[in-house]
Amino acid sequence: MEKAIVLLSGGIDSTTCLAMAVDKFGFENITALSIQYGQKHSKELESAKKIAEHYKVLHIVKDLSDIFSFSNCSLLKGSDRNIEHSSYAEQLEAIGGEGTVSTYVPFRNGLLLSFAAATAISIGAGVIYYGAHADDAAGRAYPDCTPEFERAMNEAIYEGSGHILRMYAPLMEMNKAGVVEAGLSLDAPYALTWSCYEGDDVPCGTCGTCIDRQAAFDANGIADPAIEKIEQKNNDGK
Amino acid sequence: MEKAIVLLSGGIDSTTCLAMAVDKFGFENITALSIQYGQKHSKELESAKKIAEHYKVLHIVKDLSDIFSFSNCSLLKGSDRNIEHSSYAEQLEAIGGEGTVSTYVPFRNGLLLSFAAATAISIGAGVIYYGAHADDAAGRAYPDCTPEFERAMNEAIYEGSGHILRMYAPLMEMNKAGVVEAGLSLDAPYALTWSCYEGDDVPCGTCGTCIDRQAAFDANGIADPAIEKIEQKNNDGK
Repeated sequence: MEKAIVLLSGGIDSTTCLAMAVDKFGFENITALSIQYGQKHSKELESAKKIAEHYKVLHIVKDLSDIFSFSNCSLLKGSDRNIEHSSYAEQLEAIGGEGTVSTYVPFRNGLLLSFAAATAISIGAGVIYYGAHADDAAGRAYPDCTPEFERAMNEAIYEGSGHILRMYAPLMEMNKAGVVEAGLSLDAPYALTWSCYEGDDVPCGTCGTCIDRQAAFDANGIADPAIEKIEQKNNDGK
Repeated sequence: MEKAIVLLSGGIDSTTCLAMAVDKFGFENITALSIQYGQKHSKELESAKKIAEHYKVLHIVKDLSDIFSFSNCSLLKGSDRNIEHSSYAEQLEAIGGEGTVSTYVPFRNGLLLSFAAATAISIGAGVIYYGAHADDAAGRAYPDCTPEFERAMNEAIYEGSGHILRMYAPLMEMNKAGVVEAGLSLDAPYALTWSCYEGDDVPCGTCGTCIDRQAAFDANGIADPAIEKIEQKNNDGK
C-alpha cells in the first residue's frame, strides 16, 4: 500500500484529513507531521499528539519557529499585534472585502508543504494530505489556502520531486460545516482537537476560528465535543 | 525602488543572480539569504558571507539543517552515501539518462524558495531571485531546477502571497558557460565563490560541480579566478 503524509495541526480540518487518509491507506501507512512555527501557545500541538495517538500513526513534530522570525503575524510569539476577536467575514469587511487577515502567517502553508514534500520523498510517501477548505480561501483571507495556490503548489511538488509525489486537498470544495459533516461520518476524534488562537484553558469563543468552528457544529446540529469534554471535566471536578 | 531577495549559496549561479539583482535594484534594496541545510562542510556559506560583504548587501543566514534530517542525500551530514566523482552527464547515463542524482536534496529548492517567500513578505520585498539554469535541469537530475518546477513554484508564490510576490530565474535559459559569461560582464566576484561538494582546502576537481565549473570557465577562455587565488596564496606562502 502507498504511504501518505498528513499535515496535522490539531484542529478540525487536519484531523478530518487524517481521518480520511487513515480510512483510505490504513494507519500503518500514515505519517502525521506537526510543526511548531512560533505559535503563541502549544495547545494545538498537544491536541495533534493526542490525535496521532488515537489513530496510532507515526507522528513527527518539528520545530521550525526560527523560520518566521521576521514576521509580525498576530499568531506568532514576539508579535506586537493582537489576535482579533471577530469573525473572518467581519475582518474581511474591515479591510474592504479582500486581503490577508492578521492571522495569515506569511507563506506558511508553502513552507509546511515543502517540508512535508522533503520528508515524503525521504521516507517514500507518494501523497501529502493538506486540509485547506473553501472558507479559508474566501476573499483570499488566507491566500495560501486558495484553490489557485493548491493547484500551483501541487504542480511544484510533482515537478520538483521528479514526478513521484502529489498533494491532495480533499476538503478544498467544502465549507467548514461540510468538513465537520465528513469528519463525523468517519468518527473523527473532534473532542481531542483545538482551534482557538488564544491559549487559555477554555476556547475564547470570540476569535475568528472559534466563531467558525461553533457555526460548523451548529450547522450539523450537534454540540462541539471538545467543549462538551471541558464542561464534563469541570463538572467532575466540582 | 522595489526590494528584492536573492538566494545566495556562495556558488557561481547564485553569485551571478546577485550581481544581476544589485545591477538592477541597487545594493541597498537587496537582502541575500543563505541557508545551512546540513551540508557536510561550510565552505559555501563562508563564500556567501564574503560575497555579500563584497556587495554590501544585507545578509541573512539561517540554519534549517533539522529540516532534512530524514534524507540520505550524499551532500548531507549523517548520510552514508559518498559524493560521486564524475560529471553529471556520466551520472545521468549511469541511471539511464533520466532521474535524480545522489546530490539531489529532496525538494530543497522548494523549501528554500518558501523560506525566501516567507521572509520577502515579512520585509516587503516583491521579487525573489533564484539561480537555477538549464544544465541543472537536464534529464531532471535536479527536478527542482527545471523550468516546469520554476513556473509552478512562481505561481504558488504569487498565489500564496496574495499576489504581492514573484520569483525570477534569470539564468533559466542559460547553460553554465552562459551564466559565467553573464557574470563576467557584471564583474561578479567569482574569486570568492565555492562550488566543490567536498570541503577540502582546494576544490577536488572531480565531483560533478567541479567538472561543470571548470568547463564553464574553459568555454569563456579564462582560468577559474578562485583557483588562481588559491594558487597565488600558496605561492605567496612559499
